[in-house]
Amino acid sequence: MRVEIWSDIACPWCYIGKARFEKGLAAFAHRDDVEVVHRSFELDPNRPKGDIGPVIPMLAAKYGRTLEEARAMEANVASNAHAEGLGYLADGRDHGNTFDIHRVLHLAKARGRQSELLDLAYRTNFAEERSVFDPAVLAEIAVAAGLDAEEVRTVIADENAYADAVRADEREAAELGANAVPFFVLDRKYGISGGQPAEVFAQALDQAWQERTPALRPLGDAAGDRAGGDGETCGPDGCEVPR
Amino acid sequence: MRVEIWSDIACPWCYIGKARFEKGLAAFAHRDDVEVVHRSFELDPNRPKGDIGPVIPMLAAKYGRTLEEARAMEANVASNAHAEGLGYLADGRDHGNTFDIHRVLHLAKARGRQSELLDLAYRTNFAEERSVFDPAVLAEIAVAAGLDAEEVRTVIADENAYADAVRADEREAAELGANAVPFFVLDRKYGISGGQPAEVFAQALDQAWQERTPALRPLGDAAGDRAGGDGETCGPDGCEVPR
Repeated sequence: MRVEIWSDIACPWCYIGKARFEKGLAAFAHRDDVEVVHRSFELDPNRPKGDIGPVIPMLAAKYGRTLEEARAMEANVASNAHAEGLGYLADGRDHGNTFDIHRVLHLAKARGRQSELLDLAYRTNFAEERSVFDPAVLAEIAVAAGLDAEEVRTVIADENAYADAVRADEREAAELGANAVPFFVLDRKYGISGGQPAEVFAQALDQAWQERTPALRPLGDAAGDRAGGDGETCGPDGCEVPR
Repeated sequence: MRVEIWSDIACPWCYIGKARFEKGLAAFAHRDDVEVVHRSFELDPNRPKGDIGPVIPMLAAKYGRTLEEARAMEANVASNAHAEGLGYLADGRDHGNTFDIHRVLHLAKARGRQSELLDLAYRTNFAEERSVFDPAVLAEIAVAAGLDAEEVRTVIADENAYADAVRADEREAAELGANAVPFFVLDRKYGISGGQPAEVFAQALDQAWQERTPALRPLGDAAGDRAGGDGETCGPDGCEVPR
């Protein structure tokens, strides 16, 4: 079974939802047969690349609240994070454009290090003083996740590197009807929106598992120009000889 | 869209079918939105690990043919390979147990080098004098595919490394009803059996594309203990505040 998770590194419910999903997955009997794929979603794709700053004043301006009220909002989210055992500095993080972070996450995916880098990126953004929007910090955590330093530098410097992969993920999110994150898709059949409790994920995995591997519809016969033809195969009893 | 291909390195129609699929994919308008995943299938999982030998006598014994007839069978397959522009030594390859090769292919998958190693493994088995069943040759091509030499040695030596991943692929093949390879699955919805002509793959991709991204069924609401509840999300307009 395959679970795709659309998220943004700037999204606290994605950070919290990931931990809840992983608890649900740990409680799921067939967890070893679940493949998890993380996909890109930018909450604020139009934010200029250099526009980086502390999140509290941004939240206050965005919601028309006082700084104190914005701080209380972050504290509320922080307590939800702490309840999942996650670090969260309630006034530590920056806001900014996450496109470059997603591009480097796609490099990490290609090198089998996506999960490691995603965890580090979340932790850096939400639980540490340093800013994940600083390209030097991004490079540092990418190397800590196991990526090659030179390759990371090249990807960060080249705005086109993995840009198509980020945009393809975002197109798919739109096609699937996801306009907020985290968004979880099970076997391209079930959608789960938001950082649900772990038990909800466990139950959803159970349900999707019961209904997995539906009968495949055969293609090839009808589409091909060969009468009734499957292509040649090899099986336990040997290989077919061409007609 | 996602295409999964079950195959065995010892399967000539998988080698040929892969080339035909790739031609079909190259002719498909949305090829950049197609993710290809290769999955393990052993044609002869019960063959003892050390039982390695030239394929012609094995084919003759298996099909009750003379050596000359077995050679003609291989020559027939070779001509199909040559027609796709693939190298094929009609009397060059060995037979043997492919479990270790699949395990190393899963290591390569984890490191983002699966496609590179699969191509090298096929080429080594079908188009070169050296034997892919020789662990030293397997290690050599794995390093040539971009893997770390020490990691490859460790995985080859440890029979449990990635063994579960191979078996999980094989369980899925069985669940999907595939008992011969190559077997192509499009978005877990369509199955295509065998090394079909490139045009068949192109048409199948077109058809599956037309019907991709069906409406997802929501999960969470019904499964959860919260009334009508999606989990908290962040969207373009900000993050939800917990209830």
